[in-house]
Amino acid sequence: MIAEILSTGAELVLGQIADTNSAWLSARLAEIGVPVRRHTTVGDDLADIVGALREACARSDVVLMTGGLGPTEDDLTRPALAELTGRPLVLNPASLEQIKARFAKMGRPMPPENAVQAMHPEGAEPIENHWGTAPGIHAAVIADPKNALPGEPVRKVHLFVMPGVPREMTAMYDASVLPALRGLAPAGRVILTRALNCFGLGESQIGLKIKHLMARGRNPSVGTNVHEGVIRVKVTSQGDDRERAAAALEAAAAEVRSLLGDIVFGEDADTLETAVGRLLAASKQTVATAESCTGGLLGALLTNVPGISAHYLEGIVSYGNAAKMRLLGVPEETLRAHGAVSEPTAQAMAVGCRERSGADLAVSITGIAGPGGGSAEKPVGLVYLGLATSAGCTVHRRQFVGDRDQVRDRAAKTALDLLRLRLLRP
Amino acid sequence: MIAEILSTGAELVLGQIADTNSAWLSARLAEIGVPVRRHTTVGDDLADIVGALREACARSDVVLMTGGLGPTEDDLTRPALAELTGRPLVLNPASLEQIKARFAKMGRPMPPENAVQAMHPEGAEPIENHWGTAPGIHAAVIADPKNALPGEPVRKVHLFVMPGVPREMTAMYDASVLPALRGLAPAGRVILTRALNCFGLGESQIGLKIKHLMARGRNPSVGTNVHEGVIRVKVTSQGDDRERAAAALEAAAAEVRSLLGDIVFGEDADTLETAVGRLLAASKQTVATAESCTGGLLGALLTNVPGISAHYLEGIVSYGNAAKMRLLGVPEETLRAHGAVSEPTAQAMAVGCRERSGADLAVSITGIAGPGGGSAEKPVGLVYLGLATSAGCTVHRRQFVGDRDQVRDRAAKTALDLLRLRLLRP
Repeated sequence: MIAEILSTGAELVLGQIADTNSAWLSARLAEIGVPVRRHTTVGDDLADIVGALREACARSDVVLMTGGLGPTEDDLTRPALAELTGRPLVLNPASLEQIKARFAKMGRPMPPENAVQAMHPEGAEPIENHWGTAPGIHAAVIADPKNALPGEPVRKVHLFVMPGVPREMTAMYDASVLPALRGLAPAGRVILTRALNCFGLGESQIGLKIKHLMARGRNPSVGTNVHEGVIRVKVTSQGDDRERAAAALEAAAAEVRSLLGDIVFGEDADTLETAVGRLLAASKQTVATAESCTGGLLGALLTNVPGISAHYLEGIVSYGNAAKMRLLGVPEETLRAHGAVSEPTAQAMAVGCRERSGADLAVSITGIAGPGGGSAEKPVGLVYLGLATSAGCTVHRRQFVGDRDQVRDRAAKTALDLLRLRLLRP
Repeated sequence: MIAEILSTGAELVLGQIADTNSAWLSARLAEIGVPVRRHTTVGDDLADIVGALREACARSDVVLMTGGLGPTEDDLTRPALAELTGRPLVLNPASLEQIKARFAKMGRPMPPENAVQAMHPEGAEPIENHWGTAPGIHAAVIADPKNALPGEPVRKVHLFVMPGVPREMTAMYDASVLPALRGLAPAGRVILTRALNCFGLGESQIGLKIKHLMARGRNPSVGTNVHEGVIRVKVTSQGDDRERAAAALEAAAAEVRSLLGDIVFGEDADTLETAVGRLLAASKQTVATAESCTGGLLGALLTNVPGISAHYLEGIVSYGNAAKMRLLGVPEETLRAHGAVSEPTAQAMAVGCRERSGADLAVSITGIAGPGGGSAEKPVGLVYLGLATSAGCTVHRRQFVGDRDQVRDRAAKTALDLLRLRLLRP
């Protein structure tokens, strides 16, 4: 069973956004042993979409398509499917009810033009969308009807169409397309992957520590990539036998973990904040935050974690000096003598936050995010982080490189990592 | 002149990395008026690469290809070009010298296996790479030689091959490919785009208001897309004359603005927070925030904006009830009688935040982000937002749909939008 992926949208061929759906889908297909042969992207042009669909159906057994399911004139996937299959578009009452229910949930009636999203080629099945208004479509297409010889068995291509919005597409894939593919697939070659997520060392330093595992041609293979300060060590294990491939994956992942130690904070979808949330829950401790340059980013990251309300008490965004004094009790003379971005201020912020909130741990961030505000003595990217516990307060100085967004992101992540390491080794 | 883009690499069809090169190149081509018809990605398979190259040459006048130029066995672009052109690979001495010089610069001799990177199809020109070892290749390919009728003018397709590493590819494009394309293009067709960014109405409601502008075949064309609650109305103007295309773009953008009114908050890279920052600066006012379910997200968004420190005083993340009482003065009886997620609590949070911070405006958010914590009376997604000014306090009730991330994101953006509209119409 061979797959290919087709994405449509003027914004893609105009280069206004990059297509991340095709890579995401390819990785998911690799996990279930379905090789992907090709990605194709075309714009909002009916002939181009139909042409690309025909070519894909001629080459592959499964075609996953994204985009063009919206309610407007430039959403051409439904007419393209009608032309491909030679079947008219007909209204699917169940789909229409789902779209109406979706709008009802938002407290407004369905605009009449959204009804077109319930039009599917005759014989195709709608795929439920719980995260947006556009239902997906599953159609079994007969490949190359013109080329089929009389008496030759008909080759059916399974076409799954999903919305282009990544959030809706990924949710629909997991809920509906993956189960359908599992039903179609023969026992295939298995490709299993595991990401070990690291923070606190650079990609090349990590590469040095696991160099022998990263040599080309090994199975499992090991590679690294970095995204916003988080380094992912990706282990990929291939084989015809799922159990053996899984055992080899576990062994390689364990070796990476033992070589890298505490800088590995989690696997796959784990984030620094989910790691901190897990440790807080396990130790039944509470935390509060005091932020300056990050402006609430640390609190926002922590509160990404469902259920964190049992452990996260409060956050203070003390953006101005008046707020640092009034809300955290930072002494005016500390601010005057050392400045807002200084070790004593970070310490006073963390200690004041802990005392006033009553939390077990408090973490503070004060720094210069840029682009302005830097000096020779205190350059852009300089950040002090305080960590106050019942044992006292430690302050950590970091010099980050990058723009405003990067400095803020790395500062908030470093604060999470300080919390994590303290919770790990009290 | 029509272009298309071809990328190769096992890591792309395995989904290990997303192809960002194609979007980058498409945006650059749009700038010089060359429309891109298709993106294609294939793995490290000679037949697939040759097939994709043949199809691209049959459809388009310019093909930009990335990847497969490394020195190893799985780098198949050079053999594919040899097969496509029917010419043998020959060693280019100048290319070999550049590769050796590149290694010399790194302080080591060229490994013998890198010499293969200097092999190009006979008649093709190498493209210098100042940022890596792989030279690019420029070849003029005769399209459809088998289909050409005797006496018919030969259609030449220009093929530019660049490394897959984005840093090397972008530098090579700017230094060598762009000048070559400018030389090839007839007085270039211009494509200009403008995004008008909207908040507060759904994509289909917006589509209804500007339906006549979105009809197919118009120039300028108008389309919509939605990302995380923000609807972008994209106007694209094409023409042979830059000034006329620009004037048509301005006129169409002005018509969209007049039809949509205040829901348009900015253009292109503008965000709700930059719009709020601009209005705060213009009116010289200050703001403070009081957040519950968003956990600091609103503060983090506001402090994305450089220079906001002159206007953003402080934020309170009152995640627990104790924090709501102590930090914002929400009366215990309000919480007891109405609950933390209620109109009176949102009002007390905003008013308390404004009074204590001394800010001109204060905005509060309290809601149920989910996945847990909902009830029949107060379902997941229910959010109250308070806006306190010198004129009093208004509270807004919203029922958002979606998961935890979406509810939090929409709540923070709605708070920004309430601030924006108040600053716009004091």
